[in-house]
Amino acid sequence: MKGTVLYAPHDVRFEERPDPKIEQPTDAIIRMSATCVCGSDLWPYRGAQPIDGPTPMGHEYCGIVEEVGSAVKTIRRGQFVIGAFAFSDNTCPNCQAGYQSGCVHGGFFNTAQAPMLRVPLADGTLIATSDMPRGEMIPSLLTVSDVLGTGWFAANAASVRPGKTVVVVGDGAVGLLAVLSAKQMGAERIIAMSRHPSRKELARMFGATDIVEQRGEEGVARIKDMTNGVGADSVLECVGTQQSMSQALGVTRRGGYMSYVGVPHGVSFDGQQIFFAHVHMHGGPAPVRRFMPQLIDLVVSEKINPGKVFDLTLPLNKVAEGYRAMDERRAIKALLQP
Amino acid sequence: MKGTVLYAPHDVRFEERPDPKIEQPTDAIIRMSATCVCGSDLWPYRGAQPIDGPTPMGHEYCGIVEEVGSAVKTIRRGQFVIGAFAFSDNTCPNCQAGYQSGCVHGGFFNTAQAPMLRVPLADGTLIATSDMPRGEMIPSLLTVSDVLGTGWFAANAASVRPGKTVVVVGDGAVGLLAVLSAKQMGAERIIAMSRHPSRKELARMFGATDIVEQRGEEGVARIKDMTNGVGADSVLECVGTQQSMSQALGVTRRGGYMSYVGVPHGVSFDGQQIFFAHVHMHGGPAPVRRFMPQLIDLVVSEKINPGKVFDLTLPLNKVAEGYRAMDERRAIKALLQP
Repeated sequence: MKGTVLYAPHDVRFEERPDPKIEQPTDAIIRMSATCVCGSDLWPYRGAQPIDGPTPMGHEYCGIVEEVGSAVKTIRRGQFVIGAFAFSDNTCPNCQAGYQSGCVHGGFFNTAQAPMLRVPLADGTLIATSDMPRGEMIPSLLTVSDVLGTGWFAANAASVRPGKTVVVVGDGAVGLLAVLSAKQMGAERIIAMSRHPSRKELARMFGATDIVEQRGEEGVARIKDMTNGVGADSVLECVGTQQSMSQALGVTRRGGYMSYVGVPHGVSFDGQQIFFAHVHMHGGPAPVRRFMPQLIDLVVSEKINPGKVFDLTLPLNKVAEGYRAMDERRAIKALLQP
Repeated sequence: MKGTVLYAPHDVRFEERPDPKIEQPTDAIIRMSATCVCGSDLWPYRGAQPIDGPTPMGHEYCGIVEEVGSAVKTIRRGQFVIGAFAFSDNTCPNCQAGYQSGCVHGGFFNTAQAPMLRVPLADGTLIATSDMPRGEMIPSLLTVSDVLGTGWFAANAASVRPGKTVVVVGDGAVGLLAVLSAKQMGAERIIAMSRHPSRKELARMFGATDIVEQRGEEGVARIKDMTNGVGADSVLECVGTQQSMSQALGVTRRGGYMSYVGVPHGVSFDGQQIFFAHVHMHGGPAPVRRFMPQLIDLVVSEKINPGKVFDLTLPLNKVAEGYRAMDERRAIKALLQP
């Protein structure tokens, strides 16, 4: 088969790769229905995260089970399945605590921008839908794999509750789906920080009640103005830069909750800055598996339509154009069809 | 009157100071029953925190109300009162959220190692006991002002719950009272990190079930060994150094809770270190006022005896010896009697 490989910054190739096969009895092989480019793929694409030689790419996926290993019990050939961007046994102490992205036997996918994928620990990683989904539902189901699951975790980790005031920092696909998640969790006021026309529009569609275009200190002052001078109850940091993290910390009220779900790059926190902020902090690589049953239900019952974040659809072999379009912010998120 | 002034590292003087008087109608003046030296006073004493000229010291206090300003409503002359180390109006949005140590009109005391003290915002800061306490109860009531309130906040901020496994990093008076607090909150297992004989003994008396003497990586490995390989549910950081903070982060399980209540000195966190730890973090200057009614009740009803942390009692004019004894770890905490 052919698959996606990053050779160097801005050098994405779709080239011959080994066909995946069952390596462990707990593996499954799936035939991709759709995959996509993640905001986090842009860190190495832009050279902001060094790579060590040609690197296969992709960790968001859904598709049809082609084959399962001899020890797989809950997943069968022919089923439509979705899995998290991290594989997990779903039984270790970390998984039991709801942190499957920290499974002691787990790891992260990096070969999913391809027509076929080997899924380790298939029983703990995949969930099959009860029926074969209609084609137009595939984009929304695909979001469960990472971008929706991560936005949902952002809202969960920041303790979004009915009636609360929420700020979302970052208008990428994760930020936009963090808005959708906060809305689902009953937030009364959802302030999205964005200055990009189509993203602002999507934020409003997903439930944002206010848009703040200012950034940095000006953005912090604007949010303080809007929140009784004290800041917001829940602040969802969906970028991972020093500026966005500081902005998030700066707009959270004392005793409020700040979450962070974008891998931080070049970020450090001064101990006293955190100390005197009096903020609850939580985040990390989203334990998407914890939320998958609920999120699949919300999608299948058509209560949410997170697939709207895909504003560009390409054939898989045009994956390099997907990276380019997202890098240049011409697209929010690129769906890839094998 | 005379009061305590730090001139330079290791140079504490008890010298003539202006008598406090009512400056605002919301002030009260109290005559000190007891005050003490705080672990945090040792940062400037040791030169680890620069001071800008001669600096009055002290922020832990309890005593008899001598005079109140014309706007004070709930506190009367002659009452025995305790107040938090931070003054607060107890009505602003931050106070209402339970973060009185971040009161928008508040601040911190620094003249309490003296026979008299001016207390701003007396109604929001002080609580009077219903009766005049017996003399032997004074040390325990004094701890409510900071050291017990701070240890209690450490346990509260780290979500200590019945049945949980707790680690306390730091065997100073705050750490020891964090052990007592975790015990009161129903923790099943309380692991105190200490290698100091009398502190270990007091930790056991306050409820520690295990003592770990190792530090750094060795300490982290030991705690992991004791906790199913994954770390503890709640970890209470009661020091404020880079080593203690890293140690605390390292022994908290995924999804667990780490609190920090000692002002960090020279501490910084790498964004990715926090991100991949998957830990809930909360802390800051303890909002002691939130917990004071409950803590005074526990002391007055003799359910707890936190005053045991005072293993040295000195007349107030020997305050310099209190600093020396704590600096050299000859004393856990020095009580000062005017």
